[in-house]
Amino acid sequence: MMKALQNRTTIRRYKGDDVSEELLNGLLEQAARTQTMGNLQLYSVVVTRDERQKRRLAPAHFNQPMATQAPVVLTICADFRRTTLWAEQRKANPGYDNFLSFMNATTDALLYTQTFCCLAEEAGLGYCFLGTTIYNAQQVIDVLELPTLVLPVATITLGWPDENPALSDRLPLEAFVHDEVYRDYTPVKIDDFYAAKEDLAVNKAFVAENKKETLAQVYTDVRYTKAANEAMSEALLKALRQQGFV
Amino acid sequence: MMKALQNRTTIRRYKGDDVSEELLNGLLEQAARTQTMGNLQLYSVVVTRDERQKRRLAPAHFNQPMATQAPVVLTICADFRRTTLWAEQRKANPGYDNFLSFMNATTDALLYTQTFCCLAEEAGLGYCFLGTTIYNAQQVIDVLELPTLVLPVATITLGWPDENPALSDRLPLEAFVHDEVYRDYTPVKIDDFYAAKEDLAVNKAFVAENKKETLAQVYTDVRYTKAANEAMSEALLKALRQQGFV
Repeated sequence: MMKALQNRTTIRRYKGDDVSEELLNGLLEQAARTQTMGNLQLYSVVVTRDERQKRRLAPAHFNQPMATQAPVVLTICADFRRTTLWAEQRKANPGYDNFLSFMNATTDALLYTQTFCCLAEEAGLGYCFLGTTIYNAQQVIDVLELPTLVLPVATITLGWPDENPALSDRLPLEAFVHDEVYRDYTPVKIDDFYAAKEDLAVNKAFVAENKKETLAQVYTDVRYTKAANEAMSEALLKALRQQGFV
Repeated sequence: MMKALQNRTTIRRYKGDDVSEELLNGLLEQAARTQTMGNLQLYSVVVTRDERQKRRLAPAHFNQPMATQAPVVLTICADFRRTTLWAEQRKANPGYDNFLSFMNATTDALLYTQTFCCLAEEAGLGYCFLGTTIYNAQQVIDVLELPTLVLPVATITLGWPDENPALSDRLPLEAFVHDEVYRDYTPVKIDDFYAAKEDLAVNKAFVAENKKETLAQVYTDVRYTKAANEAMSEALLKALRQQGFV
């Protein structure tokens, strides 16, 4: 795995070849060895192969091409419904319609997702993680007919790689690891940790293209703006309420 | 990795041997190949090796023995602080003090955590994932001196295995994978999917020990009660407010 991981990149273009049901199910089953709260497996996976369903999901993912081009799209959901139905059927009184339970199920779902991603990578598949899932959760809920106590938290587009992109940069280890207590960032450290990233040709081009002065401005003014984040926070909280988690 | 994963179990007892800084840092660095939102790496890891710090953290983890017995304890945090400080230092206007940003950072942190866990497993280490982190987030915040826009979402106790527990059971694949749309659970399906779990000797003993009628009641009445979940939901939301995320 270490070796597969060293060369890991996000794959957004896939060959026409299908991912067999046997391979996919094998990976989905293996991934379930992941640790889970009280061994309850607080997640569900909806597998999308149908073209029409992909097209219906695509707007939630801002119509990024991989959402329809990939042979398989997986939507991983925080799911307390199955456990709740089980409890109700067993004379038990479930209490999982609250924020903590949502976070517990989200944790289970995301850990499961990442084990799956590591396994897929090792099997030679390529994938793209779509963070858009929680930006437009309600659209995903509608298309996949997700009931109460189920909320989508991750989407994976999956297929055989048809591109070989360069490795993306990462911050140095010291930038995100703290010894015993959180050592806050001084201006000098910030300069240090972000220097290599800001110096990359690809990032400089990104700044120029967007007519900005700094790379950080591309993030705050173009990619992840305060206004969009605040609007999507409201939408996500609304979806949480509608799905019965708060 | 597949092979390591097939036998994966949670390890709660560790040998006295240390985990070298070289090995640990290698794994922490490798894990950072994990996909991350906009390549921002919205997480931080606090490494606890100091005995006094372990003892101070332990109450947040309900004094489970592995929290003090493990040579290394890792607390993984959703972190929008570093990115925010960087933006402020680059004439940019960050807008990450909201719920969506918290969820984005949580996603990054949990995906990173699980890649780390897979790598640690492959290296022969044993670990235990402590879900208690979000139950008692404020205590962890205080001990690790976490500033605004940093919230702990996962804890890993890590060391060389000193036990060899049996594999825990998992639901059949059909119980958590849905084809195209969410197929809701009928009473017959619930019976089907949970039969093997309920039939396990270890779970039957669990029901008897707790003087309950069903396994589900052990979960709802003893392990994860409505009252505790609701109280911890309030506490977690309070910690989110205090850390500036809502």
